[in-house]
Amino acid sequence: MKEIRFKLKGRMWMEIDGEQMLGPGRVELLERIQVSGSLRQAAIQMKMSYKQAWDMINHLNSQFDSPVVISQRGGKGGGKAMLTELGVQLILEFRDLQQKFYEFLNKNSKID
Amino acid sequence: MKEIRFKLKGRMWMEIDGEQMLGPGRVELLERIQVSGSLRQAAIQMKMSYKQAWDMINHLNSQFDSPVVISQRGGKGGGKAMLTELGVQLILEFRDLQQKFYEFLNKNSKID
Repeated sequence: MKEIRFKLKGRMWMEIDGEQMLGPGRVELLERIQVSGSLRQAAIQMKMSYKQAWDMINHLNSQFDSPVVISQRGGKGGGKAMLTELGVQLILEFRDLQQKFYEFLNKNSKID
Repeated sequence: MKEIRFKLKGRMWMEIDGEQMLGPGRVELLERIQVSGSLRQAAIQMKMSYKQAWDMINHLNSQFDSPVVISQRGGKGGGKAMLTELGVQLILEFRDLQQKFYEFLNKNSKID
């Protein structure tokens, strides 16, 4: 039996009731909203349409009793968006799990 | 801070030199070749074309010094295909890692 060398890679996401709730893309969107205070800016940065970003956030909000992002439409330069406490908590939990996941992948890789 | 309930899900694969070497799809193909002794049968079972399956196996073979699958073309009922020792070892290593990965995902899920 020969030693096979490989790097273990992967992707993880959270599901609620069999439906994808949060993965790397949505977390990045949340983080960009948190930094820019704008859903439009966050969408541009991620090269997605405003509608796509809005749909993602709407869908995410619908999976909880209270919203993850709250937004205010209109005004100069477009509306503002901000994360609720739940939104911030989601980012932290996801990043914490992702860190553990990377450790798992590295620990189980076989590279020289 | 409220307890967020979710099931952690994921996908993992092995890479060599930054290129995907083995993931759930290819492992399943290998296992079906092992059981049926036929690349054509394995392809049919996985609803892929013979060419797709053949390309996957060819690509996999090219990533090692010795082949993973050896095949014999032609003859009654089409050619035969069988896994080498390396091929069997790849399946075992992947399934073992996948088992550990499922344990990781379950351990880090938060469900009632």
